[in-house]
Amino acid sequence: MARNLRAKIPASDTLIVHDVNEATMQKFAAEAKAAGAGANAVEITDSARALAEKSDTIITSLPEPVHVKHVFHSILKPGPLPTLERERLFIDTSTIDPASSKEVAYAVQAPNHGRFVDAPMSGGVVGAEAGTLSFMFGASSKTGALVERVKLVLAHLGKNAWHLGEQGAGVSGKLANNYILAINNIAVAEAMNLGVRWGLDPKALASMINSSTGRCWPSEVNNPVPGVVEKAPASRNYDGGFGISLMRKDLKLAIAAAQESGTPLELAATARGLYDAVDDAHPGKDFSVVYKYLQEISR
Amino acid sequence: MARNLRAKIPASDTLIVHDVNEATMQKFAAEAKAAGAGANAVEITDSARALAEKSDTIITSLPEPVHVKHVFHSILKPGPLPTLERERLFIDTSTIDPASSKEVAYAVQAPNHGRFVDAPMSGGVVGAEAGTLSFMFGASSKTGALVERVKLVLAHLGKNAWHLGEQGAGVSGKLANNYILAINNIAVAEAMNLGVRWGLDPKALASMINSSTGRCWPSEVNNPVPGVVEKAPASRNYDGGFGISLMRKDLKLAIAAAQESGTPLELAATARGLYDAVDDAHPGKDFSVVYKYLQEISR
Amino acid sequence: MARNLRAKIPASDTLIVHDVNEATMQKFAAEAKAAGAGANAVEITDSARALAEKSDTIITSLPEPVHVKHVFHSILKPGPLPTLERERLFIDTSTIDPASSKEVAYAVQAPNHGRFVDAPMSGGVVGAEAGTLSFMFGASSKTGALVERVKLVLAHLGKNAWHLGEQGAGVSGKLANNYILAINNIAVAEAMNLGVRWGLDPKALASMINSSTGRCWPSEVNNPVPGVVEKAPASRNYDGGFGISLMRKDLKLAIAAAQESGTPLELAATARGLYDAVDDAHPGKDFSVVYKYLQEISR
Amino acid sequence: MARNLRAKIPASDTLIVHDVNEATMQKFAAEAKAAGAGANAVEITDSARALAEKSDTIITSLPEPVHVKHVFHSILKPGPLPTLERERLFIDTSTIDPASSKEVAYAVQAPNHGRFVDAPMSGGVVGAEAGTLSFMFGASSKTGALVERVKLVLAHLGKNAWHLGEQGAGVSGKLANNYILAINNIAVAEAMNLGVRWGLDPKALASMINSSTGRCWPSEVNNPVPGVVEKAPASRNYDGGFGISLMRKDLKLAIAAAQESGTPLELAATARGLYDAVDDAHPGKDFSVVYKYLQEISR
Repeated sequence: MARNLRAKIPASDTLIVHDVNEATMQKFAAEAKAAGAGANAVEITDSARALAEKSDTIITSLPEPVHVKHVFHSILKPGPLPTLERERLFIDTSTIDPASSKEVAYAVQAPNHGRFVDAPMSGGVVGAEAGTLSFMFGASSKTGALVERVKLVLAHLGKNAWHLGEQGAGVSGKLANNYILAINNIAVAEAMNLGVRWGLDPKALASMINSSTGRCWPSEVNNPVPGVVEKAPASRNYDGGFGISLMRKDLKLAIAAAQESGTPLELAATARGLYDAVDDAHPGKDFSVVYKYLQEISR
Repeated sequence: MARNLRAKIPASDTLIVHDVNEATMQKFAAEAKAAGAGANAVEITDSARALAEKSDTIITSLPEPVHVKHVFHSILKPGPLPTLERERLFIDTSTIDPASSKEVAYAVQAPNHGRFVDAPMSGGVVGAEAGTLSFMFGASSKTGALVERVKLVLAHLGKNAWHLGEQGAGVSGKLANNYILAINNIAVAEAMNLGVRWGLDPKALASMINSSTGRCWPSEVNNPVPGVVEKAPASRNYDGGFGISLMRKDLKLAIAAAQESGTPLELAATARGLYDAVDDAHPGKDFSVVYKYLQEISR
Repeated sequence: MARNLRAKIPASDTLIVHDVNEATMQKFAAEAKAAGAGANAVEITDSARALAEKSDTIITSLPEPVHVKHVFHSILKPGPLPTLERERLFIDTSTIDPASSKEVAYAVQAPNHGRFVDAPMSGGVVGAEAGTLSFMFGASSKTGALVERVKLVLAHLGKNAWHLGEQGAGVSGKLANNYILAINNIAVAEAMNLGVRWGLDPKALASMINSSTGRCWPSEVNNPVPGVVEKAPASRNYDGGFGISLMRKDLKLAIAAAQESGTPLELAATARGLYDAVDDAHPGKDFSVVYKYLQEISR
Repeated sequence: MARNLRAKIPASDTLIVHDVNEATMQKFAAEAKAAGAGANAVEITDSARALAEKSDTIITSLPEPVHVKHVFHSILKPGPLPTLERERLFIDTSTIDPASSKEVAYAVQAPNHGRFVDAPMSGGVVGAEAGTLSFMFGASSKTGALVERVKLVLAHLGKNAWHLGEQGAGVSGKLANNYILAINNIAVAEAMNLGVRWGLDPKALASMINSSTGRCWPSEVNNPVPGVVEKAPASRNYDGGFGISLMRKDLKLAIAAAQESGTPLELAATARGLYDAVDDAHPGKDFSVVYKYLQEISR
């Protein structure tokens, strides 16, 4: 993502980076230097606060709610940030729960430190490298300006940016989408396992499903049966792809957020328990490995 | 289906029909007569046996396994069928369980009464009327001839005919597809309900999902939120469409067949119990009414 | 129940009976006659209304909510009942849902036709014959008189009568108890199956569980493994006992009532789906046959 | 447990202890010394191996399978143990999965290092202190001697010792019992929540259930509604008792062992997912806190 930003932002801009991994930052700065004249300047800082003091657009990308809260605490705790020409725009691309996202947004916006926008992404490592990520974001549309500014920034990082509603709508939409994904993935694994055990050819079965009402991303793009989709993780021993632990995390966030809002998710507990068991049996694999697990527990 | 058959079979052929509903048969015959010269001859019979005696291609379409078994019993019980020029081909388009289908196939084929092919369809009443049904069939491919003959017949009734494997593969494939459909439908209803209760615009949420990894038939074609897809049952009070009781039937068949083959379906029991409750609350509606039920039980 | 009533009510009382089955009534009346002098008089009537006109205490025992509503409609529809010396007391021993029970109570009490008390029972056919039923009832305790009167009547029919609260509390309590029963029964069947498949002796396993935290009615009294409890249905091919269809009915009522009150039952949908499948496979058997079903679907 | 052992073993015996916590060992030795003349000698060692070299009866009590494997590896790795007068008896009181238990038993017994017996306990910290633990053990009964020797040892630590079958049967039985406990606990929490929300008095409801078919340990001893059972964790803010994380561990082990043996546990995934969510919301509490969680997610 940082590479794409560096390549695409206007020449007049400076990209300032910060990461807990010092070596990674140094390597990135060296790369930028090697890219030579004409390439954008890259600066590294030793804290998120230092970065935020000098930047009008701050993009964060972190694993869990606790990390997002911690980083923003470190930015905001020392007191008011120096005023810059443009209002600061904080874009958080982490997938976290709506409540945590709103909490951080409040901490940023209530004292007028700037605007906070939640903009989780989908597309994985492949999409991040290729610059083809999709973003779904939540931002006040009272003035059109904020939404347009967010879209301009995200255009440097991906190919789509969906404005789903007020602040919080981005992470909400992401969790809703990934909930469907979590369940559809199990459904496809169960149905493919059933078909294969009944003696059907998995490729023929997948073709039929993909022309019928069963078609979905796990049947078409990420089919869990090895050999059906050549480029899917299933065809390379379930390596790469979307790790089960990430799916468990998203499912956990969706369940907690649903609970808070009193919304039933009838299949959620069963799905979560199943992913737990699959992760115990096949840690580190793509979440389509549910198929392999089901095969193993079949008679 | 009979209307399309009448319109599309060669002029030299005669369409013989039988139905338990006498009035329906008479009406159909009258229609054929009214169609006048050049239209195919239609004959009505008073029993499935009488029909089978005179026909080399017999198509059955019945609600449940018990009806299929009963009709074939009535055909085969009286003894050997008179020999015709071509070997008889029985095509059963009912959605039943693989074990029942194999049982009937055995009763037909073991004494050389002809060939039995399972060819359930998808596309609903709309597809049947428009002649755009999809068929998935199971037929021995030892000689190419049988598969070709089946495809020719089904071409009069629909637009696709998938050969999935040996006899039984058609109903197996249908149940596998509809299992995915049953689960994906719940997942979409849950996620849309979650999003709407979080304050997201349902149309924007659906658009994002349909461009992301959550895309599936229930999100795109049959979206359960009224107003999101204009032509979906949800937009007309969940009338028409695919009735919950039919979904319950398919789910029941899939569970029984999975059980017989020792194949786990982790989400099946929860889904079945949920459809039971939804059917209690909203009998006769399209199966996307799960969304409405979830709305009602939300806090 | 009628036999016990006849035997236990004061000699001055007359027992009036009505049943849709004419032959059953005649047989019961003949039995009473044969019992000779000293036995209570038994009278049969041809309608519930006729019975209610002459009785100050009316006990109903019916299968489903629809029957209860129908019978009370037939009693109340023709208009005010003739006044008797004592206020009429209607005791409904059917297991129905709280909402239906309250609806009927309202129809009885709003126009002052008498008092309506819900008093479902547990103990089965065996308990009914032996007079050892337990009743749980809901009745206003504003005056102690009603509660005492109900207890006196129920003492003729069983050994316990629990006053759980206001009208409706009886059926509510029954559904809560039977929900636990439904789930515990599955838990025990699953655990016993697991133990047996691991090679443990089922009797030793059951003894240990019954001295530990796993002890419950399905492990101790109704153990699902043939031979563990000699008198349990499991030891006589799962015949007799508490039929699966009755358990399905109670589960259905509990789920509907929970839904109406916005109360989550996380295990309910899975349990309901499982009982559906067990009933498909083993219709008419005691609900402990879940064990046999699980055995069959084990690898 | 060590205190009870010290108090009950014959005066001629020496109790040798080892723990990773040095301070705990020192404190225990000091206590023994303070107990003065007549009290059994206590010796502390700096490794499990050193302990095993000098002891003919070795009791281990560890949290998870990985710890059990690790400790036995440290004992067996250095080579044959010195021969003692009696054959060594290893009694492992940890609750682990049957496969791990058999693996360690094999490592001990194949090279004739002694006998390995699995003897998990129930009764918690309270039972351990009071010496009222129950043990369930697996030991070859080819000669009666081993079973008798195990019973004699366990009599120093608890009040019951159930011999359930061959080696492995102890941990198997424990997991089967705790599986029932995990599910029954949810069932009771759901039913009590339902009853309370319907307006029933929780004490009256619990009394009725405890006299009916719903009676079980979670309804009677560990009732999840505050105030119903005075000494239950629910009545002291769910502190103490059986922690959710321990229940999650046992459920995880049961699921993994069931999977390995191809045994279905239909309610397991839902239960596991639910305990996950409850642990997220109320970490560190007694597992009856499921009730509180359900209350919170009720409408």
